[in-house]
Amino acid sequence: MNWDQVFATRAGRMKASEIRELLKLLDQPDIISFAGGIPDARLFPAEAFGAAYAEVLSGPDAVPALQYSVSEGYRPLRDWLVGHMARLGVTCSANNVFIVSGSQQGLDYLGKLFLSPGDTALVTFPAYMGALGAFNAYEPAYDRLDPRSNREVESYRDKAAATGGRVKFAYCVPDFSNPTGETLSRADREAILDLTEALDIPVIEDAAYQALRFDGDNVPSILALDLQRHNGDIDAVRTVYCGSFSKTLSPGLRLGWIVAGKDLIRKLVLAKQAADLHTSTINQAVMAKVATRLFDAQVDTIRAAYRHRRDRMLAALDRHMPKGVQWTRPEGGMFVWVTLPEGMDGADLLAKSLQSQRVAFVPGRAFHADGSGANTLRLSYSCASDEMIDEGIARLGRLIEGEMAGV
Amino acid sequence: MNWDQVFATRAGRMKASEIRELLKLLDQPDIISFAGGIPDARLFPAEAFGAAYAEVLSGPDAVPALQYSVSEGYRPLRDWLVGHMARLGVTCSANNVFIVSGSQQGLDYLGKLFLSPGDTALVTFPAYMGALGAFNAYEPAYDRLDPRSNREVESYRDKAAATGGRVKFAYCVPDFSNPTGETLSRADREAILDLTEALDIPVIEDAAYQALRFDGDNVPSILALDLQRHNGDIDAVRTVYCGSFSKTLSPGLRLGWIVAGKDLIRKLVLAKQAADLHTSTINQAVMAKVATRLFDAQVDTIRAAYRHRRDRMLAALDRHMPKGVQWTRPEGGMFVWVTLPEGMDGADLLAKSLQSQRVAFVPGRAFHADGSGANTLRLSYSCASDEMIDEGIARLGRLIEGEMAGV
Repeated sequence: MNWDQVFATRAGRMKASEIRELLKLLDQPDIISFAGGIPDARLFPAEAFGAAYAEVLSGPDAVPALQYSVSEGYRPLRDWLVGHMARLGVTCSANNVFIVSGSQQGLDYLGKLFLSPGDTALVTFPAYMGALGAFNAYEPAYDRLDPRSNREVESYRDKAAATGGRVKFAYCVPDFSNPTGETLSRADREAILDLTEALDIPVIEDAAYQALRFDGDNVPSILALDLQRHNGDIDAVRTVYCGSFSKTLSPGLRLGWIVAGKDLIRKLVLAKQAADLHTSTINQAVMAKVATRLFDAQVDTIRAAYRHRRDRMLAALDRHMPKGVQWTRPEGGMFVWVTLPEGMDGADLLAKSLQSQRVAFVPGRAFHADGSGANTLRLSYSCASDEMIDEGIARLGRLIEGEMAGV
Repeated sequence: MNWDQVFATRAGRMKASEIRELLKLLDQPDIISFAGGIPDARLFPAEAFGAAYAEVLSGPDAVPALQYSVSEGYRPLRDWLVGHMARLGVTCSANNVFIVSGSQQGLDYLGKLFLSPGDTALVTFPAYMGALGAFNAYEPAYDRLDPRSNREVESYRDKAAATGGRVKFAYCVPDFSNPTGETLSRADREAILDLTEALDIPVIEDAAYQALRFDGDNVPSILALDLQRHNGDIDAVRTVYCGSFSKTLSPGLRLGWIVAGKDLIRKLVLAKQAADLHTSTINQAVMAKVATRLFDAQVDTIRAAYRHRRDRMLAALDRHMPKGVQWTRPEGGMFVWVTLPEGMDGADLLAKSLQSQRVAFVPGRAFHADGSGANTLRLSYSCASDEMIDEGIARLGRLIEGEMAGV
């Protein structure tokens, strides 16, 4: 799956035979991969899930767990999420919580609901590739969301009108973003709310990595800041918060959630009813039990493991990267974002890296809605061992050094 | 969920207060319901599911089961389905099988893939309401699919052009259809293939109830007949087969599948990747085990139970329905379709039935893309006990008799 992402970036410029050659390389076990944007499934609580499935299927819950259920989601899971959101400073009711089959599905429904061909979505450059993929199905144009820009509101409107539509929403990953690992400051978040208020559009806050902070201070979610602007009235906010269990408890159950004003939730429920009826009943019943029992402990486990890997990767980058290469220092999440000297190409580097160094990563251009970012790349440390990190970054450093000398 | 369907049919004509009154009635336990189009979850193999979840989560499969997986679906489940389809006379490979989160999701993706606003979908009158709901998101027009009509091919094209699009596909439920319970004959199926061949469009064969035949002879699937027309070359067929585990093993896991030529499958896989990445990994792993172990035995159990309920309902209808009321005699599935005398209105009857008889069903107009069918209604026997059937049909017969006398 993630190899597709790697190759999507080169496919347009490579012959089929070249792609096949690269794919053959990736099947080989000696490749050190920092490419996959996936969590470490060895850290997930398999035993607790096993116990919860057994419990649900052996008791009175078995019959409803195997039956159809309501499109908005299983009530005990929504109730747990109300408590979870309250701990994040967001007071809402179960009517504001909608369960989706992974937060990716939430992005798809939001694209479906808001975008007509030619409309504009504001996204960061770079942005999560999967969000661009979900939105692309509805044929939008993209404009740049940059909380520090001084662009006039009218310039967004004019640019959107030029592609035959209107600005429909802003999308961002404020915490430990995919792909850069960076976190938006409180001022950045307020600036996004100012802009979207002026444009009268929703903000889609993709909080997929929110729980994975290793250090630094918590920044309130955009939704929490938006709530403050509306005296705590959740039904008055313009923020649509997309949460996910995929980075903390498991992506294999396909469970995410959306928190928003109840009018929007009602529309999303109707969209889901038409699209796939509802999310797996049994998985929701099991997740309600597992989240209640060990969400906090599980988050601690994952944070500790990823913090160690991030530290190891940053130390290796410090040791091995030549001068002129820059990278982010994320306070959480799964990714480090590397910027090569101008003129170097991440996709070309990948091809060379796979062949000569046996190291994989994702070139950065694929994350850029405008096709820029050729000299960037994403490294994921989430599934890497100390040895993989030390050896893989050393090899990558040597390769980049050689390339820079050759340039 | 299914109450929404009941009320969707009246909502346009009722005041909110009236709807609230009816909803209050439906919360009461003394209502006898033939409304819900849902299987009897008490018949599902909860113990076998429990054992399979335990097995997957305690062995080496636990880590991959909790991880992201490929968009096309879990290979062992696709392999089981290749064998299942072979038993239905369809020879295909795993490349022709695509796992979806319930066959409803397959209908949504097919709508997304084929329909632009103003395009035409051919559907039976009546048709499965959920299919119309899925397609409606893509703003099609509908034209009638009637295998026994003698309409010229050009008339379909002209009608589609008049709404600004083209005929994009035909959709039907050939076996024990929702809502009528009727089955298309082999000749009907061949006629549909003739028409769609002439129009050069796909046929979406919704086989949700295919396994639930109680008596009568099996009719080959449209896909099997299409394969015969193409010398067994699955990649040359125009039929898109949508299968479901929801009526046999459980809807709570949200698992269905599509079988089609590999070019179409590839497009659907890309659509799913953008829309929700993939179907629940663990549920697919569990279903592969449970289907392998007991699909046939499970189908026997469900057939026996539903056959008994169908017989009981047909006998009750024979006893209690006044002359002038007609109904189908399904050879399988979950539904009997009742036609009232011209001039009677199923939605009005429902309101009266809920109030005076405490019996619920689904009025038929909601299944008609053209708003016809006012004098029809759908009865489901899938979850009904002998006593419910005897008493509920007796009450409904009395009510209809009274209404006919009053008309």
